[in-house]
Formats: sequence, C-alpha cells, structure tokens
Amino acid sequence: MFSYRREVTIEWGDCDPAGIVFYPRYFAMFDASTAALFAAALGYNKFEMLSRFGIIGIPMVDTGAKFLQPSKFGDIISIESQIESFRRTSFNVLHRVLRGETLAIEAHETRVWAGRDLANPARIKGVAIPGEVKEAFGV
Amino acid sequence: MFSYRREVTIEWGDCDPAGIVFYPRYFAMFDASTAALFAAALGYNKFEMLSRFGIIGIPMVDTGAKFLQPSKFGDIISIESQIESFRRTSFNVLHRVLRGETLAIEAHETRVWAGRDLANPARIKGVAIPGEVKEAFGV
Amino acid sequence: MFSYRREVTIEWGDCDPAGIVFYPRYFAMFDASTAALFAAALGYNKFEMLSRFGIIGIPMVDTGAKFLQPSKFGDIISIESQIESFRRTSFNVLHRVLRGETLAIEAHETRVWAGRDLANPARIKGVAIPGEVKEAFGV
Amino acid sequence: MFSYRREVTIEWGDCDPAGIVFYPRYFAMFDASTAALFAAALGYNKFEMLSRFGIIGIPMVDTGAKFLQPSKFGDIISIESQIESFRRTSFNVLHRVLRGETLAIEAHETRVWAGRDLANPARIKGVAIPGEVKEAFGV
Repeated sequence: MFSYRREVTIEWGDCDPAGIVFYPRYFAMFDASTAALFAAALGYNKFEMLSRFGIIGIPMVDTGAKFLQPSKFGDIISIESQIESFRRTSFNVLHRVLRGETLAIEAHETRVWAGRDLANPARIKGVAIPGEVKEAFGV
Repeated sequence: MFSYRREVTIEWGDCDPAGIVFYPRYFAMFDASTAALFAAALGYNKFEMLSRFGIIGIPMVDTGAKFLQPSKFGDIISIESQIESFRRTSFNVLHRVLRGETLAIEAHETRVWAGRDLANPARIKGVAIPGEVKEAFGV
Repeated sequence: MFSYRREVTIEWGDCDPAGIVFYPRYFAMFDASTAALFAAALGYNKFEMLSRFGIIGIPMVDTGAKFLQPSKFGDIISIESQIESFRRTSFNVLHRVLRGETLAIEAHETRVWAGRDLANPARIKGVAIPGEVKEAFGV
Repeated sequence: MFSYRREVTIEWGDCDPAGIVFYPRYFAMFDASTAALFAAALGYNKFEMLSRFGIIGIPMVDTGAKFLQPSKFGDIISIESQIESFRRTSFNVLHRVLRGETLAIEAHETRVWAGRDLANPARIKGVAIPGEVKEAFGV
C-alpha cells in the first residue's frame, strides 16, 4: 500500500541527559509522519483534511513501539510510514525508523476518524472514513 | 508489589487543537511516574539513583498504551504505577491512568538498567540490576 | 498584588544532554503557572475561565527570561507568579524561579485576553478584560 | 553577517486548544535553528562541535520574543537566524520568523560557550569562544 518516507534530524532538544532521544519525542515525530502520510496520499494537509471532512482529528486509541537502537542529536533518521488497514471508523498505521541501514524502531498505531458526538458535543466519537480517503490510499 | 500513585493536572500546553491531551505527552508523564516509583521505593531521586549505581539511565526498549478515554486541560488524572517484573538487566512497568473512577489509559513499559559499554563508550548496554534495588520493591 | 507560588520537580525529560533543563520547558512551566495564577484568583480553572468569558485563550505577545542558574533533573524549583499590570485587553505577568534561596530565573510575559474576530472567525483579537477578573486580583 | 534560513512545517502537536502554536514550541525551533546556523557556518553539526571544542553546550542566559502573528498547524514558516555579536565567552543570536511575506515573530538570544568548571565539575562556566568559530562567521 501507499507509503511515505521522510527524514528527521534529531535535535539537541529531542535528547535527554543520557544524550539519546527522549522516547516521547518519537511519538510526536510519528504523529507528524501520520499527518504527512495522509497529506501525501490526499494532496492537501491535515488542516484542510479536517475542515473538508468535518472531523476534529484522528486521535490515538492504541500505540506501541519497540526501540531497537538509540539515536543521538545530530543523527538523521528516516521514518517510513504506511497504512496497514482501514476499518469502518478506524485504521492502523505502521512506522519503521531507519538510521542508515539499521532498523532502529518499529511502531504501530490504531487511530479513529473522529467527529463530535452531536448528542453530546463534549464527546468525541468515531465516524465512517469517507470512501475517497480510502481510495487515495488505493484501497 | 510496591506501587505508586500521583495526581497530574492536564495543562493547556499538554493539549492539541482537538482540546484533548496530545498523546506523546502521556509518555512524558509515564516517564516521570516511573522515576517517581523508583524514588518512592528507594528513598532518593533518579539523579541520585544513577550516580549511586553508576548507570546512565533506564532507557525504554518496548512500550505501548491503550487510550480508552481522552482527557482535556483542567482535568486531574491519577497515574498508578508498579513494577510488573524484574529480570536480570531489564524490568516491566505498568501504568494505569484514572480520571475519577474511570480507567482512561493502560500502558506498559520494558526498560533496561543501562550502563556505558566499556569496550565502546558510545554504546549503551544493559547491566545487572542490583539486589538492593529489587529488595526495595520487595522482590 | 495577588501572587501564586507552586513547586515543580524537574524531570529527566525536561533536561538536555548537558543534564540541565532544556529552556523551552521553562516556558511551558510558566504557561501552566499563569493558568494556576488565574485559577487561584478566580476560584475555577482555565477551562472554565475560557468558557465562562467566551474567550479562546490568553495568547502570548511578548515574553522574555533571564536564566541566572541552571537546574538539573531531581531539583525542585519554586515558581512565584504575579500580575504586574492589567490594561484594557492585555496584561503583564512576572515569574520568579527560586531554587532554595537562589534566584534562578526572572521572566515576564505580555498576554492578550483573546476572542474570535466575529468579522473573520479565523482571526484572533483582543477583547476587554472583564471587571470581575481584575477585581479577583484586587485591581 | 552570515545568516541561515530554514523552513519549518507547523505540526498538529505544536498547537494548543486555540489551534495556534503553543509558544514554548517556538523556542525549541529557535534552539534547533541556532544549532543549524552554527552547522552551516562550521560545516559540521552541533554534536561534532561540542566534542571538537570540548564544551558541554551553548546554554541560554537571556532570551525574548515578540509574537506578532500566530501560526496554525499546516502553516509553513521560515526562520531566519544570524549571529548579532560575539563577545569573549558569549554571543547574541537574532531570529526572524516569516509566514509568506509577513513578519510573524522576532526573537533574540544570549548564549554562553560553556564548559565544565574544572574546580567543580557539577558547575558550568563560560569559556573563550575559539577564533576559528568566529572566523567561520566572518568575524
């Protein structure tokens, strides 16, 4: 399926006193990579995606990561992202981080295509992922 | 086994444009909770723990979280943390986030008790977890 | 004038490879301190403040800080915050960070009491700070 | 004097519930821009700069920013950075953020070229900025 790869430079501020990436920063990078994956497939960015489809976001419901190799500031990593599967209101994403030829991290995400619950606007609920979004990924 | 609970106020800066916590922030909270768990068991903080045992940190090798309920700024959550198991050089931590009576998140971590590799100081390697650390947790 | 003091524990994830606080983290702490200052004066939190007065936030227009002493993870700092002055639609805040008896940081902020521009909802504009907010600070 | 410009995409996770950048994130961007400015002038990255000159970092001692226009996720900003002046052990940096033709932010920094205090390794102290660093900036 459609995949997207981007390079990220590890910054000083991404790293902890051990000199390696503070792992929550990777999740922020993965969040940006998932946004970039959709933007690459759809041809417009997440801001426009949300307003076009009237959703409030694609919040995380389940995520995990295996950290195989640490990275330090100044390193340049590649993050390769792809949709693993679409369901009616949710989808899975896989991220692989490579440093040179070395696989450094494997991560997975389950996210929801989420709108406001009209019966209770304070609540968020899954809504059906539009066909044109799935089609943009070749599904 | 020994467990530790702390309350965290969700701040404006923890939240995203959907008004709910940007999930990488939870991992930063869990990292602080794991540090607080050790501090509560040992009686001194992580800074002293690292210098006392000559390690460079307790880096993450595997983590995951299920997000069952979102939280928004102003909410106060409880994070309950405990060691699930110790092995020779690594250990598992569980975190449960409660908002009132509601279980909001379940997370797990596998971390390594890590020193410098003396043969290659640029590398990090697992070292044996001291007996007195395990004893502090009643193991 | 009314002031508010809170203690903050410096976490591992707040620190950089030099082992001291990555300074952008202080600004996140100051943002939370300004929210806590208003909550202490008003008796309800920022979430309720925004919905009660129909504003979208109190965005920063000018800030600065002098970093006199670094702090490292495990340190406990006190952040003392107070309103320096209110104007019609904006206000100034001062923060002083103490580590023990030592003054570690002095910071100032100018923020706007901000609503949506009704003529252009994509824009943010200053609106008059309600009298009851100023009164809560004894102005 | 030598200047450096880079483009930064504002990510979802950079933004707050008002939908605009949470301002501490800009300081993290400026920190990365200062690192990139030195890397562009010297021809190698900050990691190598620190090890080559035996310093522990270039910590901030004074910074400030004026936020003239907010940015939202999906926006692409340009950050233009330059050294304003070098002194014996410290230096000033200016950053200008542009969104299209619009000046969005002006910021300044004073940083120290910092080593360990040999008499007290827990302390950080300013050391003389090497001539070859100044020369790389045409000073």
